Amino acid sequence: MDDPVPLAHLPHHDGSPLYIEEQHPSLGQDLVMRMRVPQTFGAVASVHVRSNPNREPRFAEATLVASAAGWDWWQATVEVENPVHHYRWLIVTDDGRQHWLNARGLSRIETLDSEDFRIAAGADAPDWAAESVLYQVFPDRFARSDAADSRETPDWAIAAAWGDPVDTRPPGRSKQFYGGDLDGVRSKLDHLVGLGVNLLYLTPVFPGRSNHRYDASSFSIVDPLLGGDEALVRLVEAAHARGIRVIGDLTSNHSGDGHEWFASALADAGSDEAAFYYWLDTVQAELAPDESASAADAVDASYAVTDAAPAAAPRRSYVSWLGVPSLPKFNWNSEVLRRRFIEGEESVVARWLQPPFNLDGWRIDVANMTGRYLDEDHNAEVRRIIRRTMNEVNPDTILLGESTNDAAGDFQGDAWHGAMTYANFTRPLWSWLLVPGSTAFGGLGFALGMVPDFTGEQFVEAHTQFAAGFPWRTRLGAMNALDTHDTPRFATSARPGVTPVALGLSVTLPGIPVVFAGDEFGLTGEDGEASRTPMPWSTTDDAEVAPRIDLYASLIGLRRAHLALSTGSMRWLHVGDDVLVYARESASETVLCVAARADYDVALPSTALAGADAATPAFGDGRLAASADGISLQGSGPSFSAWVLPGVTAAVMRA
Amino acid sequence: MDDPVPLAHLPHHDGSPLYIEEQHPSLGQDLVMRMRVPQTFGAVASVHVRSNPNREPRFAEATLVASAAGWDWWQATVEVENPVHHYRWLIVTDDGRQHWLNARGLSRIETLDSEDFRIAAGADAPDWAAESVLYQVFPDRFARSDAADSRETPDWAIAAAWGDPVDTRPPGRSKQFYGGDLDGVRSKLDHLVGLGVNLLYLTPVFPGRSNHRYDASSFSIVDPLLGGDEALVRLVEAAHARGIRVIGDLTSNHSGDGHEWFASALADAGSDEAAFYYWLDTVQAELAPDESASAADAVDASYAVTDAAPAAAPRRSYVSWLGVPSLPKFNWNSEVLRRRFIEGEESVVARWLQPPFNLDGWRIDVANMTGRYLDEDHNAEVRRIIRRTMNEVNPDTILLGESTNDAAGDFQGDAWHGAMTYANFTRPLWSWLLVPGSTAFGGLGFALGMVPDFTGEQFVEAHTQFAAGFPWRTRLGAMNALDTHDTPRFATSARPGVTPVALGLSVTLPGIPVVFAGDEFGLTGEDGEASRTPMPWSTTDDAEVAPRIDLYASLIGLRRAHLALSTGSMRWLHVGDDVLVYARESASETVLCVAARADYDVALPSTALAGADAATPAFGDGRLAASADGISLQGSGPSFSAWVLPGVTAAVMRA
Repeated sequence: MDDPVPLAHLPHHDGSPLYIEEQHPSLGQDLVMRMRVPQTFGAVASVHVRSNPNREPRFAEATLVASAAGWDWWQATVEVENPVHHYRWLIVTDDGRQHWLNARGLSRIETLDSEDFRIAAGADAPDWAAESVLYQVFPDRFARSDAADSRETPDWAIAAAWGDPVDTRPPGRSKQFYGGDLDGVRSKLDHLVGLGVNLLYLTPVFPGRSNHRYDASSFSIVDPLLGGDEALVRLVEAAHARGIRVIGDLTSNHSGDGHEWFASALADAGSDEAAFYYWLDTVQAELAPDESASAADAVDASYAVTDAAPAAAPRRSYVSWLGVPSLPKFNWNSEVLRRRFIEGEESVVARWLQPPFNLDGWRIDVANMTGRYLDEDHNAEVRRIIRRTMNEVNPDTILLGESTNDAAGDFQGDAWHGAMTYANFTRPLWSWLLVPGSTAFGGLGFALGMVPDFTGEQFVEAHTQFAAGFPWRTRLGAMNALDTHDTPRFATSARPGVTPVALGLSVTLPGIPVVFAGDEFGLTGEDGEASRTPMPWSTTDDAEVAPRIDLYASLIGLRRAHLALSTGSMRWLHVGDDVLVYARESASETVLCVAARADYDVALPSTALAGADAATPAFGDGRLAASADGISLQGSGPSFSAWVLPGVTAAVMRA
Repeated sequence: MDDPVPLAHLPHHDGSPLYIEEQHPSLGQDLVMRMRVPQTFGAVASVHVRSNPNREPRFAEATLVASAAGWDWWQATVEVENPVHHYRWLIVTDDGRQHWLNARGLSRIETLDSEDFRIAAGADAPDWAAESVLYQVFPDRFARSDAADSRETPDWAIAAAWGDPVDTRPPGRSKQFYGGDLDGVRSKLDHLVGLGVNLLYLTPVFPGRSNHRYDASSFSIVDPLLGGDEALVRLVEAAHARGIRVIGDLTSNHSGDGHEWFASALADAGSDEAAFYYWLDTVQAELAPDESASAADAVDASYAVTDAAPAAAPRRSYVSWLGVPSLPKFNWNSEVLRRRFIEGEESVVARWLQPPFNLDGWRIDVANMTGRYLDEDHNAEVRRIIRRTMNEVNPDTILLGESTNDAAGDFQGDAWHGAMTYANFTRPLWSWLLVPGSTAFGGLGFALGMVPDFTGEQFVEAHTQFAAGFPWRTRLGAMNALDTHDTPRFATSARPGVTPVALGLSVTLPGIPVVFAGDEFGLTGEDGEASRTPMPWSTTDDAEVAPRIDLYASLIGLRRAHLALSTGSMRWLHVGDDVLVYARESASETVLCVAARADYDVALPSTALAGADAATPAFGDGRLAASADGISLQGSGPSFSAWVLPGVTAAVMRA
């Protein structure tokens, strides 16, 4: 067989603005796209784009439009005939060989439709989405305002003092109540400003019967325990005044069993609300899954509220999220549910994006399971209605969906702007940077809780395959989290010294960097419950904490200072067991990144990256030397380093 | 990295009855599935099945249920919660490593949903579908009855005598008319019996204005030029009397522009029929694709009828198949079209499956594009309605769909039983067995008409990736054709002596073997028009022809004598540049196959295949020797050889 082509000498395209200037084509539009082939690749006879309109292949021939710095640039025009336009490149070399380039890489044999590049037509996220750095707050654990002291502990809760350890065992789990509130969040906004984050994501603020509030008892009011509607208005106004947008969290898969809709449904089987849920006595017996088995097997215990809401009478059986009785599953066949919850200006989805609340978007919980049950699948309808409603009342908003595994199937640009997924970033990151043999149970989604021990090559393979299925625009909305409120904290089992590596990857790979509040303090936590530690504000100036907060501010600053890190193309230059070298490239600038878990000494051919001789250090202590003989990168590890170079256009012009 | 595991020592599962006895689970059913791990694989700590109900992973632990002949058999029970149940296996070895087994093979890192094994719930094809050997007849070119002499040549046609060469240039292309008819087909049924085929597929028999009849002018009658309705009744009865089923061919993507519906549509823009088509003056201008460009680029000229049906007045512009004006595209928004064509007992789909016609199913033309246009996609609805109608009037029928590239997306067990696709068999076969550097333009779908030069490894990689996306049941319905009426003939550029290799693969790989009438006579043809040669019946006993017909009969006989070749599991044992060794295995028997394009000498470990010492030669001249030291396979090439061995259960029992 053929020798593999060195990484830095692979033909490249990824759908980014470097290759497709028009990122929002309309249906039927002729779209100009480019691709680059290194001159080391061999004599090229012709280059083509294979599109697949209506699932029938069509070829367009490309023309050579520029040659510079060791690369040839080819350009073709294709018509966007469907809302998700599939395409792949075909390079024919003079020896008659065919080389296919798709979202997973280069292939000598025909490739699958599922591996195509794709570009979505029509409406999209606002530009600021890709330029966001997201900071995640779990309101009960972030900060208490003075007003919190005067509130009564609710009947379901077990009061805790701010310094108490998190109780991870039932009934404390989900019931332990620290009393953080929205005015508390507001009082700490300057901490967010200091970090440089510009997007605040609040896990649910609706009332529930748990500390996590994913068991909403209403979508009509902000939980009075958080300060009520007025506190949310105050928080959003204060955040906006600081250039920070705010998004909320909605559960489209289920409500709490204490929800006002569920109460009406239980009280009257003929009510509108009764049709909002699935009742097991109306599901054909042979179709009803075994709820007891599923609950035992699969549930994330964080959400298993063990005591149900008070019920006046024996209940009908109903379908619930993974068999957890406190979370009855929505039945999206109901038109009334659609109108009340997601469709039109009066809906829940719409209401909070408008004055006086002015939220800047939603993160949708359990987006992957929403509307799916047995032989029903309303998922595409529901997500499209949600986004249509948002576009009607406030298009300058973003819509993120939780889908923690292979998310691409639902994230094709028709509704969700990005995925809270762990498959393409978080799990590969943990597998490369955790102490070998670590475990991580629960919401992070490692099979059997085992964290595999990855090489750098495996990190890239896993990242690439799970990112490849997204259109470029959706890839930019993928949430690059080290951890979240559903997972152990990354720091718990990380190899010594790798925080800059992990955070560096988070802020420089395509996607929205995510900071789970408390990571910047070095918090640890063994699972998704233990990670919900109250913020240790008193340690801010501690010797171990202050430099860590500075590190976060520096790397977030790097991201925000260079637009190429938000929207630039993504090209791997060298991948070894312990080191990853890659460039984010745009017409105006290039950022070269090196993420290493050990010392490194990498030699790249000079044509790997134009303009390396004009590189300016932007982060870290790595050493770069460039000459006509090649590019040398050396440094100690673990470390993260970045350099800023001239943009691709500038390099082409200079050549 | 790790050394690759030898092919014969890979864990194995493929969804076949050897691993899942219940092939037709109902929704909600607990399904027992097995997987085998070679004892050479390393100490296994645990085995699991990861399902993905409602797109949320769930794990079931497997138990060791048998150990024999060097293999351990693991078994798990999983619930089928959705109509297409996705699953993959996870093997954890004692060293803590995870090994994922999915439809594309073994992986050390997490895998994509699109690569999962899958099993479909609910109704399925009748058992005889997988046991079929299909013979494809293009009626104008198969045989003339005496009655044909008395028919007048129609106005659109150019009469040809049976011995005339095929005219591949317009206007002869599509207009040249040989006058074959259905009584002619009936007169030659004993030839089909002699070959051993048991399923006759007729390309369209409805009237049109071309020799191919894909431009139907009615779906209500059999073309009088073919003998009319009565001739079809006579043919089906005669075929059934010989144990041969008969399927027809429907164009769900378009009609002819001479169709009675299209005439009504043109005559009255307010008619029901006007809503059966897409009119360009009602499509928003910016959404209308450029028909002239697409026609020039992409059309298979075989179907480009250059003179339109007579029109009384200037026509409105309409959308058509790849811009070919004679083939106006159906608009499946029309409920009237659905009722008249595909839905319910009075529909076209239903009518021909009932007495007096009694067709045994349909092949649907351009299934991939059906119902797809700009931002509309009615494909899933249309295919499901077609099958539902068939199930209502005659469930003992099959439904095949044309989808000549990556077909898996639409072939998930909800409607189509199998695909006429070239991606998983025909193109890889040509790439392995044609003279290097050959070209093949048109309907076969090679990019730019270039046939790449594959190694055996590439054949297997291409076959595997394009077959992996099918549920097992749909994989058994994939049409394994050397060629069809839309492609050049395989023999045109085949390497010398490879016919037994190609046909051997066709009758032993999973799928329905397809013989395009005339291949057994050694016909050649440079493209999809030239391949439509009138059958050279007078040469049947010629020295070059008679042995070839015998070869077809022998290999079809092999297929039909061994049920394992229809439904047995598929396991690769050795793959080299020039030789492919594989086994089709069931509980009652195993068939070992060797397909070689050159001389071969292959050594397998003795545990590769149990019972090799009891192998009985079933085809070819290959030599097999089995001892405790291993299995040796030797032979000259090109050649195809097969042996019959005891079934897997028998081998397990004996061990």
